[in-house]
Amino acid sequence: MLTASLSIRIDLPPHGRIGPGKIELLEMIERTGSISAAGRIMEMSYRRAWNLVDELGQAFDQPVVTSQTGGKHGGGAKLTAFGAELVRCYRRVEQLSTEAAQAELDMLRDHIAAGRKNAAP
Amino acid sequence: MLTASLSIRIDLPPHGRIGPGKIELLEMIERTGSISAAGRIMEMSYRRAWNLVDELGQAFDQPVVTSQTGGKHGGGAKLTAFGAELVRCYRRVEQLSTEAAQAELDMLRDHIAAGRKNAAP
Repeated sequence: MLTASLSIRIDLPPHGRIGPGKIELLEMIERTGSISAAGRIMEMSYRRAWNLVDELGQAFDQPVVTSQTGGKHGGGAKLTAFGAELVRCYRRVEQLSTEAAQAELDMLRDHIAAGRKNAAP
Repeated sequence: MLTASLSIRIDLPPHGRIGPGKIELLEMIERTGSISAAGRIMEMSYRRAWNLVDELGQAFDQPVVTSQTGGKHGGGAKLTAFGAELVRCYRRVEQLSTEAAQAELDMLRDHIAAGRKNAAP
């Protein structure tokens, strides 16, 4: 099944960029309540996951995740209200863009399929 | 001046992906009539430029650029009709997506600015 789909980055000069990886990481933090657990699911180190979260906070100059150290399960993390809003906003941009560009995406998909069928030997 | 802008990739499984770099390369080939000149403008080697063009052709199983060897200026290159259509299509996706997501992009931009103004010392 051939498809053409959009992958969206949002550039936020001077420091920020949001893409599918960071958004998925935030979603996994929300789901697991833990930066390290979210990182494991996405096969990245705690350090890498933490750095991505920190980068996001720096881009906006306000945190997207709050974390606690210690406690029964060695601390935990959750999205701030702004972090949750960022995820919703990104997913909405993705959805709106895909809807707006559907005719073009369909055309590209058809060109892939047609190209394959008419491929030179 | 803070802005939030979209950067679009179009995934074309199983092999293809179009993003701003490849599209700009095609535009430079159209402008200069040469893969190597286009590569120089974009500060990439001829080999890198050629590989990107080849990747695009493979993704669609039809060429996006035609090139000739020899001749007065050592050959030249131009977009095929399909290559030109690909560029137009990508730029249209970019425009439609940005229009569709304008409210979200404005909101993100405002969050950057607000975040900066309210930054903790």
